[in-house]
Amino acid sequence: MRQIFEAELRQIGDDLVEMAQLVEQAVAGAGKALLEADLQTAQQVIAGDHEIDALHRALDERCVHILAQQAPVATDLRVVVSALRMSATLERMGDLARHVAEVARGRYPAHAIRATAQPTFAGMAEAAAEVAREVTVLLSTRDLELAGEIEKNDDVLDNLHAQTFATILGPEWDGTTQEAVDITLVGRYLERFGDHATSIARRIVFLVTGDVDEGPTHD
Amino acid sequence: MRQIFEAELRQIGDDLVEMAQLVEQAVAGAGKALLEADLQTAQQVIAGDHEIDALHRALDERCVHILAQQAPVATDLRVVVSALRMSATLERMGDLARHVAEVARGRYPAHAIRATAQPTFAGMAEAAAEVAREVTVLLSTRDLELAGEIEKNDDVLDNLHAQTFATILGPEWDGTTQEAVDITLVGRYLERFGDHATSIARRIVFLVTGDVDEGPTHD
Repeated sequence: MRQIFEAELRQIGDDLVEMAQLVEQAVAGAGKALLEADLQTAQQVIAGDHEIDALHRALDERCVHILAQQAPVATDLRVVVSALRMSATLERMGDLARHVAEVARGRYPAHAIRATAQPTFAGMAEAAAEVAREVTVLLSTRDLELAGEIEKNDDVLDNLHAQTFATILGPEWDGTTQEAVDITLVGRYLERFGDHATSIARRIVFLVTGDVDEGPTHD
Repeated sequence: MRQIFEAELRQIGDDLVEMAQLVEQAVAGAGKALLEADLQTAQQVIAGDHEIDALHRALDERCVHILAQQAPVATDLRVVVSALRMSATLERMGDLARHVAEVARGRYPAHAIRATAQPTFAGMAEAAAEVAREVTVLLSTRDLELAGEIEKNDDVLDNLHAQTFATILGPEWDGTTQEAVDITLVGRYLERFGDHATSIARRIVFLVTGDVDEGPTHD
């Protein structure tokens, strides 16, 4: 019984890593679509979100099945409940990547992001892709140093997000309202991405160490 | 044992209703703060979000405790897992109300929403408050007609959200970029509110009828 249960727990872990890998691709693709006005990549990210959603539903069903069949307690129970929550978070990260890709597609063949704001968004896209990679590795290795790196990259995203507002609200801004709207929305999507990654990092820290760090509000 | 368990399940239901009532107040307050540039109400909504967060954590702990102690199966298990998810959704609705209040506070004593966009936002605030009220009643009564009403009000929010873009991107728009940014963000927060309410409505429908209606993607 315990052997079956451990196999099932491992499968949950593998499913989370698989979801995280797809999210990682989606985020990298969304950044590319946005910065290069790359329609094909935008379409791939948008179409690929269904796969993340399907994995999310399958993983949730697996967790509920384990709860019903194995009635786990203590740490095992925490692992399964955390998996339910991290699965929801990864699914949401996939949505956000899709939203970024949708903005890129909506403006094609133009660039959604005006040249003056491109460096800031290049930085945000890079930091978002970086946290996505770190989340995948963290879910595989539970290496807690990575959890710290994720929080640092979330700070990078927050700072760059503040810069996007400085750009569109500064005296040198001469873009259209549509451009300001796109920058506002895409900036928000990418910044939320860091919040979600941080939430996963904290759940892993909790699973490994038992420490809850509510930390500053990340929302 | 079964009696204790049923009392615990009832307590979960009561906790969800209590959270929903606080969210309802927060949303109504956020709308008032926004439309009337009412600083005091904005502060109340912002400060009150801690209480929603605390209820969220307590409810989650209660759910995990029940899973550990009672090892529920079948419908009982679905009720507990759904409660975990709805608690997370209500917590997020509280965050969104706080974000709206933060925008109102940030612009005080000015109005965040320019006069030309006020009617649209008055409609959004009303629809958001209405879905919040409906969520509270739905959680108490499980009256499935209300689930349908919530989805209708979500459509109202989506349509009004589209109008906000039509306003700021239309030829008559003469607002500042800051006003366009605020309208973009607050419109997004209020629209997300409807998505979350719809997600709760579908979970309740599933618990009552067993029917999963994935429906159109609401995110």
